[in-house]
Amino acid sequence: MTQPKPSKPKPRVGLVGFGRTGKAVASVILQNKGFSLEWVLRQSLLLENRQVHEYLGVKSKEPGRIISTVHTTPAELLDRHPVDIIIDFSSRSGIHTYGEVAAERGVTIISAISHYRDEDIALLHRLAERTVTFWSPNITLGVNYLLFAAKSLKKIVPWVDIQIIEEHFKGKEGVSGTAVKIAESLKLEKSVINSVRAGGIVGKHEIVFGFPYQTVRLVHESISREAFGNGVVFVAENLEGKPAGFYTFESILMPYFASN
Amino acid sequence: MTQPKPSKPKPRVGLVGFGRTGKAVASVILQNKGFSLEWVLRQSLLLENRQVHEYLGVKSKEPGRIISTVHTTPAELLDRHPVDIIIDFSSRSGIHTYGEVAAERGVTIISAISHYRDEDIALLHRLAERTVTFWSPNITLGVNYLLFAAKSLKKIVPWVDIQIIEEHFKGKEGVSGTAVKIAESLKLEKSVINSVRAGGIVGKHEIVFGFPYQTVRLVHESISREAFGNGVVFVAENLEGKPAGFYTFESILMPYFASN
Amino acid sequence: MTQPKPSKPKPRVGLVGFGRTGKAVASVILQNKGFSLEWVLRQSLLLENRQVHEYLGVKSKEPGRIISTVHTTPAELLDRHPVDIIIDFSSRSGIHTYGEVAAERGVTIISAISHYRDEDIALLHRLAERTVTFWSPNITLGVNYLLFAAKSLKKIVPWVDIQIIEEHFKGKEGVSGTAVKIAESLKLEKSVINSVRAGGIVGKHEIVFGFPYQTVRLVHESISREAFGNGVVFVAENLEGKPAGFYTFESILMPYFASN
Amino acid sequence: MTQPKPSKPKPRVGLVGFGRTGKAVASVILQNKGFSLEWVLRQSLLLENRQVHEYLGVKSKEPGRIISTVHTTPAELLDRHPVDIIIDFSSRSGIHTYGEVAAERGVTIISAISHYRDEDIALLHRLAERTVTFWSPNITLGVNYLLFAAKSLKKIVPWVDIQIIEEHFKGKEGVSGTAVKIAESLKLEKSVINSVRAGGIVGKHEIVFGFPYQTVRLVHESISREAFGNGVVFVAENLEGKPAGFYTFESILMPYFASN
Repeated sequence: MTQPKPSKPKPRVGLVGFGRTGKAVASVILQNKGFSLEWVLRQSLLLENRQVHEYLGVKSKEPGRIISTVHTTPAELLDRHPVDIIIDFSSRSGIHTYGEVAAERGVTIISAISHYRDEDIALLHRLAERTVTFWSPNITLGVNYLLFAAKSLKKIVPWVDIQIIEEHFKGKEGVSGTAVKIAESLKLEKSVINSVRAGGIVGKHEIVFGFPYQTVRLVHESISREAFGNGVVFVAENLEGKPAGFYTFESILMPYFASN
Repeated sequence: MTQPKPSKPKPRVGLVGFGRTGKAVASVILQNKGFSLEWVLRQSLLLENRQVHEYLGVKSKEPGRIISTVHTTPAELLDRHPVDIIIDFSSRSGIHTYGEVAAERGVTIISAISHYRDEDIALLHRLAERTVTFWSPNITLGVNYLLFAAKSLKKIVPWVDIQIIEEHFKGKEGVSGTAVKIAESLKLEKSVINSVRAGGIVGKHEIVFGFPYQTVRLVHESISREAFGNGVVFVAENLEGKPAGFYTFESILMPYFASN
Repeated sequence: MTQPKPSKPKPRVGLVGFGRTGKAVASVILQNKGFSLEWVLRQSLLLENRQVHEYLGVKSKEPGRIISTVHTTPAELLDRHPVDIIIDFSSRSGIHTYGEVAAERGVTIISAISHYRDEDIALLHRLAERTVTFWSPNITLGVNYLLFAAKSLKKIVPWVDIQIIEEHFKGKEGVSGTAVKIAESLKLEKSVINSVRAGGIVGKHEIVFGFPYQTVRLVHESISREAFGNGVVFVAENLEGKPAGFYTFESILMPYFASN
Repeated sequence: MTQPKPSKPKPRVGLVGFGRTGKAVASVILQNKGFSLEWVLRQSLLLENRQVHEYLGVKSKEPGRIISTVHTTPAELLDRHPVDIIIDFSSRSGIHTYGEVAAERGVTIISAISHYRDEDIALLHRLAERTVTFWSPNITLGVNYLLFAAKSLKKIVPWVDIQIIEEHFKGKEGVSGTAVKIAESLKLEKSVINSVRAGGIVGKHEIVFGFPYQTVRLVHESISREAFGNGVVFVAENLEGKPAGFYTFESILMPYFASN
């Protein structure tokens, strides 16, 4: 989240998807001086031709055009308003509409879609042969750090007892997808997950490592969905200058751990 | 803490220092099938010629002789009852008595002394030219993992706010040495440390990483001082087969993080 | 937060003050079916004649007129749009403008002003001779429950070690007023308070009770300032039918503890 | 845990049961200057005629005779070595052996047996007609405080979401009895309990109260079983001077909450 030097042109960003998380991400990008938000592409016609910063009540001079897929194809959009990076918070079908035309133009793709199917991921890998392609089903820095740190600890002490406690608001159904991801990464049964549902808890994940005579806890607490925006900015900064290829949060974090 | 295969002879261990922590460490080594406790060397004449397992009420067939420095020099001891590893929980002067004779015989040195001065550390480095020499001022696995994981996170996000909360029993004087070590490793002022003193809390260290929209906490809770014994066993296992040189907990943990 | 039976008319509420907390409180009252928000009184002319629910984007049929003190006196307002309860989130001067005319009309006063001076509190006590008058410098249910529960525990074990940890966002200056209030209630020095400042932490207060062989922790975590609205609703429900007098959160909570 | 004035004779205590918890309780009583440990009664002949303080390595001038039920009946014991209080950490059958003869002599009975059946409790109630009779299945102060404080909070906000997290060492089978007791007291299904089993965690109980915009947590952490001893001392001090009757921890704590 350091700012690029003034002489360098800011990377231009296009955002696909403008739901609750998309809006929070747009707000973070608008307020980050290292990137310029060119446009937001969404299916709905609502808000068309308004500007993101005006709609969100954020001060900014960036274009931030709100554009509907009803009147514009991704190819037209990329030609008229070129960007360096596309950030995808839409749905699993998004990549099928803009993926090819983005790869053709060498636009970096950062996808934060949680529920891709195998065929979607296969497409991502094909695009990765031509452009920098990144995917993370949970793009917050904190959760990905936890994942990496937890895997390292399990490698150090494979015999340690590991349990997961996740807490969310009363209405959240099913086990947290992030908790399931953590359990899978650690090759643990889902039964290690304890799900607490109460009131308005935004989101908390705690990984408990039980040693015979000591306990280590790795804890992540969400405050608001703007955290996804910070994750996007971190990823975009770390992908800069990288060659075409498929990247994950783990591949980005690895070098930081390797050279302590 | 995996057990060596039966065909391989167990590494023989000598323990220098038999205070409260030394006793807890001896108890853990006696109960670990991968090592054999040959003797304990201490200054006091008390308990001389008794056996550690009998004194501690632990079942074991290992020799575990309790020997006083009053009647035996380290050289005599190493000749009469050779060991592969010396573990030092005595005081800063210990290394000056057994260091040379251990290095001559290629005995691995694992020192857990907290308060070495510069000249002591210089000696360790000289010994490291001839034998495997390890030093950690806090030899629990959990605390060292926390240190490493925290340094990695700070490298990832150098701008993040970091605060430390340490909790100990009412009578503990001054700021926790481990908390100071954590602060120093992270290049933070000591003012980031909050010291809570209440009742019989054994020991808790929490590193709080404050992001704008999320919080990460790394927490270590001590249950009992046997944790030092488990740390020693982990270190001894990881030093096996290594060439002469100076090792720290960080150099042992690094490879686990590097190849996630 | 139980809903009154349909036959009973809803208590009518007037809100004085429409800053960030005032807005959150208005939002909670609008969504609570047990009360009707008649008006909001504020100094600014901005938003005058708009409706609270329309401004906040909340569905509601309640009047919720936004009225400025520039054009209307409290007496005129209470005559034209009578209410049963006035809720004060303005500033310490508010009570001096509406207090007398509210007391004359038997309107319940619920004040959540943090920084009253002695003369303001004296006025509250005079008003309490004629109408139900309530004051709490922190009107969340959770914090007040903590205060009460902590005082009880200290009475049970006066010798227990008590420490307070409060965590807030990086920019928060000084020690948390709520933490100071807790320390004062427990007759402890301010030195027992540990203040952690990091990132975007909304607000956390933890009271640690250290016993020789066990630890009790009372923890309050704020999620958002709507918590003040829920506190107001709780207080309003519990003051219903009470005789004129001066009430605090403690006097409201006491009966719940006394008859377990 | 205040000490009685020197002029008053110390209450004399007899302890029934000398397992791991009984020993920890004996150690606490020996070190408390307000009580005198007269004897320990146990079934085993082991240790007979030794003294508790000598066996436990605690400095004390109190008799602390270790007596076996094989050679002595409770009636003989109470006549030869009279006590004011009997503390029971034996098993559910204990009360059937000493109950009658203790009640006849007006000896206060403090029972900490977890698994009484209905007929045992019925006996306690009959004894309570003649002497002060106390029973708590978990006699730590912290857990009982938590129970009381949690019940009060539920009375205040019956609609709040409540969840329980309990953590214990890996080997502990089944759901914690204390957690079940908490759930029952709060009239909640057992499904609100989340059981974490990992490493050597001594024991932690956390009751989470989820409000829409805030969270309250009541947490109890066990450090060691000496906590039961402190609970016994607290109960004994609070029962002093009370008339015959049946007492629980709740009836002892109530007055502390009622008069804040």
